Amino acid sequence: MADKKLVAEITSMDEDFTQWYTDVCIKADLVSYSNIKGCMVIKPAGYAIWELIQKHLDARFKATGVQNAYLPMFIPESLLQKEKDHVEGFAPEVAWVTHGGLEPLTERYCVRPTSETLFCDYYKGEIHSYKDLPQVLNQWCSVVRWEKETRPFLRSREFLWQEGHTAHATFEEAEERTQQMLNVYADFLENDMAIPVIKGQKTDKEKFAGAEATYTVEALMHDGRALQSATSHNFGDGFAKAFGIQYAGKDNQLHYVNQTSWGLTTRTIGAMIMVHGDNSGLVVPPKIAPIQVVVIPIQQKKEGVLEAANKIAESLSAFRVKVDETDRTPGFKFAEQEMRGIPVRVEIGPKDLEAGKCVLCRRDTREKIECAIADVPTKMAELLDQIQNDMFDRAKKHLQAHTFEAHNKEEFAEAFKETKGFVKAMWCGCRECEDKIKEEFNVTSRCIPFEQDTLSDKCVICGKPAKKMVYWGRAY
Amino acid sequence: MADKKLVAEITSMDEDFTQWYTDVCIKADLVSYSNIKGCMVIKPAGYAIWELIQKHLDARFKATGVQNAYLPMFIPESLLQKEKDHVEGFAPEVAWVTHGGLEPLTERYCVRPTSETLFCDYYKGEIHSYKDLPQVLNQWCSVVRWEKETRPFLRSREFLWQEGHTAHATFEEAEERTQQMLNVYADFLENDMAIPVIKGQKTDKEKFAGAEATYTVEALMHDGRALQSATSHNFGDGFAKAFGIQYAGKDNQLHYVNQTSWGLTTRTIGAMIMVHGDNSGLVVPPKIAPIQVVVIPIQQKKEGVLEAANKIAESLSAFRVKVDETDRTPGFKFAEQEMRGIPVRVEIGPKDLEAGKCVLCRRDTREKIECAIADVPTKMAELLDQIQNDMFDRAKKHLQAHTFEAHNKEEFAEAFKETKGFVKAMWCGCRECEDKIKEEFNVTSRCIPFEQDTLSDKCVICGKPAKKMVYWGRAY
Repeated sequence: MADKKLVAEITSMDEDFTQWYTDVCIKADLVSYSNIKGCMVIKPAGYAIWELIQKHLDARFKATGVQNAYLPMFIPESLLQKEKDHVEGFAPEVAWVTHGGLEPLTERYCVRPTSETLFCDYYKGEIHSYKDLPQVLNQWCSVVRWEKETRPFLRSREFLWQEGHTAHATFEEAEERTQQMLNVYADFLENDMAIPVIKGQKTDKEKFAGAEATYTVEALMHDGRALQSATSHNFGDGFAKAFGIQYAGKDNQLHYVNQTSWGLTTRTIGAMIMVHGDNSGLVVPPKIAPIQVVVIPIQQKKEGVLEAANKIAESLSAFRVKVDETDRTPGFKFAEQEMRGIPVRVEIGPKDLEAGKCVLCRRDTREKIECAIADVPTKMAELLDQIQNDMFDRAKKHLQAHTFEAHNKEEFAEAFKETKGFVKAMWCGCRECEDKIKEEFNVTSRCIPFEQDTLSDKCVICGKPAKKMVYWGRAY
Repeated sequence: MADKKLVAEITSMDEDFTQWYTDVCIKADLVSYSNIKGCMVIKPAGYAIWELIQKHLDARFKATGVQNAYLPMFIPESLLQKEKDHVEGFAPEVAWVTHGGLEPLTERYCVRPTSETLFCDYYKGEIHSYKDLPQVLNQWCSVVRWEKETRPFLRSREFLWQEGHTAHATFEEAEERTQQMLNVYADFLENDMAIPVIKGQKTDKEKFAGAEATYTVEALMHDGRALQSATSHNFGDGFAKAFGIQYAGKDNQLHYVNQTSWGLTTRTIGAMIMVHGDNSGLVVPPKIAPIQVVVIPIQQKKEGVLEAANKIAESLSAFRVKVDETDRTPGFKFAEQEMRGIPVRVEIGPKDLEAGKCVLCRRDTREKIECAIADVPTKMAELLDQIQNDMFDRAKKHLQAHTFEAHNKEEFAEAFKETKGFVKAMWCGCRECEDKIKEEFNVTSRCIPFEQDTLSDKCVICGKPAKKMVYWGRAY
């Protein structure tokens, strides 16, 4: 237990979820606070997760025809201002560069908070004819938004993300790409991150600055708060008109292009922590775990133990595996494996060795499984799949158990006395009721889900005829 | 020939090498000029090469124990100023952020031109004991240097790179890592980029701001100019003293750490263009070619041709292959394959099909090889290896044929009347002679090569006793 303390000094999540989250981020070595206010250092253990997220997501993107590119990080002020809604949304929170070297700039540049305007500027030069369409580009980069309150992964002044930007001949094609990418995100989050999501559309109030329609995948954290996990926007021809991006169609007429953008950020790592973590630290889904298996020798100085541990690791070369040969105690190593959320640890000591077996211990359930040494590779493949699936199922059950229905204002108020999860309720569609809900309950619309129910025919706020069922929640 | 014109309107390299270079960058779709002065857009064809460079280099890094991380892009002015030589080297060319959102910052931040100061600030918090050493981190990111004259890949205000930063217990360990990484770069450049390099040390005049020793790999471009292709620096404990990075040793005393940094940038793509390219465009080495083979059907409307082309492509699934099924003429497609530098094209038409064969055409030599369709996969593996090796051998021969010796000032002057290549000459080791060479001949010391010859016992400038043989050249 003393050993355990050494690595596991984290606040209980039931006591103080916010502190628990911060503790895990720091103790699991994912991030470190930097001396640059509002910016974090992503440490190797955190960055390795991001690398796997990139790998899985990038492969999915490329399978749909996406190509990667890189555009400048600076946006001249005049370019940012070209699309009215967009500049209003972003100008208050950008960082401004005013000097290059010793000279003041003739026009100040902001560091990109997002790159719609840059891609528009680029596409204007690239697109002339229908033969130049579609353009389906993505970039992996960092962006800057000058946030006042920051938290590791969830909100920081600089963060890493990918941003896709596409241009199409028609609104319908743009809409198809917008939804396709939303489905890519949902598939990635559910299958690789083991995070179940609600797919839906943002209300006009919550949509992206400059978009015709914003789609979102919303996830539920362990504390009942919602986290917008990725978004996909259809811009119609709004940006094209502002920037003059036209193409000659087969009809020999000029047409404006229709555009989309879609993004997923390092906050996904925050979602992973808050969906799967527990009071011993991280629980990382096998598919995105930088280390999937750690082999821990017990009494490693006894003859043959270290050798056996290394042999087991060698037999697991199909997985991301390491042997912990350090001179710390096994108890310390177990606690560290739990803190870091490594999906499986293999324990092997002199007695196991004699009996030709070892113990596999699951991080998610702590279940211990005896296994003949020769069977470890086969068993491990099954076990990692099982863990991945079980993690998703548990998160899905949590989501279902924390999704409530409110049929009227009283039930709505009752449901949000505490933050327990999502509340589904009918809405008339007007901005006034949405503002009222925010004001009275400190709750926002998360999405108009694609899967609609009819809970009643009246808006829970104004009582007028309801148009849509909405997911409401308190969000990160 | 008309078709060829369509895609190949590039200036001859013998006529105007600079224009040839720019033409290739643009026509091969590698970059586009952006409206942000001095910044470029790296288009998909260019970025795909960078992705392969990253993949190959990152694997080499990780094999030596490097871990990736991500540090903020901003450096507060006071942090940049902590190491005297360093700030002098970089302050005149950084971009300054003065406002965050609507508020002026209390201290201005620069956008990182390189991240030594940030890593020092981070390591100061991470390193306490000898058990925390070594730290061997790397980050892939973009950096900003406010250059006055810019050229695609070679010099731009923002560029992509990797920067490794390490901390060690002793100077010797730091030196070992510095040299190890230089060897990694040399191995990568020679084996994957097919670019032969000279390994050596920079003179004090040319070393990195703040370094004790800077090592470099220098390559020779087709026009006889040199290109510094990667550098590796040993900082000793200079930064550690400026930042106060100390560790408790096994001796229970406090010691300063010893640090290194090493980087390679997107200018490597520029080197690839200028080492291997020809008057038809790019020639990309197979190992970093995003597309290694393009299958071009001839008379593709004739029965069975397209099907056969696709079958050949399927049989080449071990390679990066595509079929060009567009409705453009074969001549246009050939010229495009040449422009883009795709290492091999496979031509297959009705007559070939009848005879059960096809034609493989090498980009580098334009040699055409008849091949039975069934043998294509085996032949392709050999051919791509052959091309990779031949490209290196040709570049090596060019390097050797354009490396001259000067035994005195007259020979030195003669050698640099035109820019033909490297000139090896003896040097007394003093800054004055180095400055004089720069002034008189517009030539810089490229490196003091590890492989030393004794050409004479006198400095070519002052005639005093020579200490070292130096490679001199005109550089990009």
